[in-house]
Amino acid sequence: MPAFPRFTALAESLPPTVPFVGPETQERARGEKFVARLGANESGFGPAPSVIEAITREAQICWQYADPENHDLRMALGAHLGLAPERVVVGEGIDGLLGLIVRLIVEPGTPVVTSLGAYPTFNFHVAGFGGRLVAVPYRDDREDLDALLEAVRRENAALVYLSNPDNPMGTWHSAEAVTAFAKALPETTMLVLDEAYGETAPASAIPTIAALADMPNVLRFRTFSKAYGLAGQRVGYVFGVEETVSRFHRVRNHFGVNRLGQAAALAALKDQNWLAHVLAQVAASSDRIAAIAESHGFKPIPSATNFVTIDCDRDAAYAKAILDGLVSRGVFIRMPGVAPLNRCIRISTGPESEIGLFKQALAETVAELG
Amino acid sequence: MPAFPRFTALAESLPPTVPFVGPETQERARGEKFVARLGANESGFGPAPSVIEAITREAQICWQYADPENHDLRMALGAHLGLAPERVVVGEGIDGLLGLIVRLIVEPGTPVVTSLGAYPTFNFHVAGFGGRLVAVPYRDDREDLDALLEAVRRENAALVYLSNPDNPMGTWHSAEAVTAFAKALPETTMLVLDEAYGETAPASAIPTIAALADMPNVLRFRTFSKAYGLAGQRVGYVFGVEETVSRFHRVRNHFGVNRLGQAAALAALKDQNWLAHVLAQVAASSDRIAAIAESHGFKPIPSATNFVTIDCDRDAAYAKAILDGLVSRGVFIRMPGVAPLNRCIRISTGPESEIGLFKQALAETVAELG
Repeated sequence: MPAFPRFTALAESLPPTVPFVGPETQERARGEKFVARLGANESGFGPAPSVIEAITREAQICWQYADPENHDLRMALGAHLGLAPERVVVGEGIDGLLGLIVRLIVEPGTPVVTSLGAYPTFNFHVAGFGGRLVAVPYRDDREDLDALLEAVRRENAALVYLSNPDNPMGTWHSAEAVTAFAKALPETTMLVLDEAYGETAPASAIPTIAALADMPNVLRFRTFSKAYGLAGQRVGYVFGVEETVSRFHRVRNHFGVNRLGQAAALAALKDQNWLAHVLAQVAASSDRIAAIAESHGFKPIPSATNFVTIDCDRDAAYAKAILDGLVSRGVFIRMPGVAPLNRCIRISTGPESEIGLFKQALAETVAELG
Repeated sequence: MPAFPRFTALAESLPPTVPFVGPETQERARGEKFVARLGANESGFGPAPSVIEAITREAQICWQYADPENHDLRMALGAHLGLAPERVVVGEGIDGLLGLIVRLIVEPGTPVVTSLGAYPTFNFHVAGFGGRLVAVPYRDDREDLDALLEAVRRENAALVYLSNPDNPMGTWHSAEAVTAFAKALPETTMLVLDEAYGETAPASAIPTIAALADMPNVLRFRTFSKAYGLAGQRVGYVFGVEETVSRFHRVRNHFGVNRLGQAAALAALKDQNWLAHVLAQVAASSDRIAAIAESHGFKPIPSATNFVTIDCDRDAAYAKAILDGLVSRGVFIRMPGVAPLNRCIRISTGPESEIGLFKQALAETVAELG
């Protein structure tokens, strides 16, 4: 049967690819569940008990649409950040917000700069609006700020994506370097600063709110999906100058952020003790993963995130074989998709029970591969 | 401070209007909560206890991203509809899915037809992608199928929106009339058939699945927000021929539907006894609202939805005064936005306690207005 004949030329041009294959898809293909879920940088340490309480309470009124202004959460975020709440917009995860900023800026042919191997969902959105993506290689396993800036200038880019700390490598730049990068950009280039892993980073890696607060061409994206442990709830936020941020309201799905997600995020933000507890667990788990890697002669890359990327010290085929060995033993992990990053595997921090399963599966896999 | 200077011309052209002002915004302005929430066609009868159980259970793993394929829910919906699950896409409410279909078809200047006074969020999306909206007046308080068809042909419309049963009037066309309308459309016009209120309608008003199943230019949108009582969970779905439906995957936010929403919708779909229980309550509540309206000499318009639209039998100013009187007494309702529909007010069905508050507030308001 033919499809409808009048999709836009852009829609017709899009490939049927998806940014990520979920672990559930792999489980269905395998015919069994994973025993360890260490591939999506979720927080296996879980959300705060206070969050579970908030969800349970709010479930009774899940028949009510949520506040489309996300008022209470925005007020709390504004207070948390020290910014007027009008400078914050909440969305269906950073993914949803990335789609909106791309839509607001990108038309067919608009040049956009990112790093080669950086977040695929950003690239998915850029392709979805017809942008021309220019990807700059990593340098020494870090996003290359100088090369990104050079590409922005050369291509007259309207958007540049920077993740700090970075995914999939876990590396970071200093607050000073990020601030200098932002200030060096042309005023006609929007910096999409993805700080999904900001909570796990050292303070010295994250520019203060004030450092970038008055720049109309900087937007900082944060999420409750990582350290706060609410990936399934779909709550992210973005902040910047009000004149820029307010543009999201013209195109966003106003009722898109679910009621239980708003309540959960609000409870999570209020429970900074739980966050501190999780951060300690992340740090301990990172050390443990690094030690396991080193026991095989691999090189854990220092990480400011809730995962550890491990240089398996050989080629991409070897790293892929390691990944396959882990997955076949029920340990869900992922690895970077492009060279030279794809000599590595990436392990999310998690409860010791799951890290133990990773340790055992890795030992078996390494022994098998020789 | 100036905004970023390089938003698209389309983005710059968009007004800062929003489709709906939520009741929470009105509550903040009033300085107190509403005592009755009868304005958003939510289900005050609540979700099934089995849904609350599912949410409570799933809350423990809300740290996990949801399955981006929405596999279990799509399988269940496919079985429920008697369609291959590949013919179903789940999204962040019908609102989110409407945004996607508009994006796939509408470019600046693309002609789109809807009814004058129909769902504002559809219009918001059409404007957001630069479409040229042509609105056809209602006829006898129903969407005018003949006039819609005429407008589609005259304008060479790429999209036409039809809600059956209709919001904000609650009226409907027969399954035969809707089917004939769909079949009379040019193959180059996509029918967006919004069946948000399908569960509350008589079977004779809803085309069978088979009646429209093989049409590449028909998409049927349904939701868990109304009769199923999950408005806050943000789960809607769309079905049609696979070749058409599959286009959503090229642009959707793959991880956009939250985990608890997927679990809640799955539980709700399985609990058809609860749905039947709610439908009986909706019917009783509709009768009660109609009787209250008639006691004041107003004319309740027969409804196939979970709300009753009441013709106040005078002008728009009078209907607005009635609405203001109710709202000032803490009873949240809405009214149609355009003439001649705006001689009416719209009351959602709900628990008798809230309907009693509506009755009292209406009597006081009518007496006050004289």
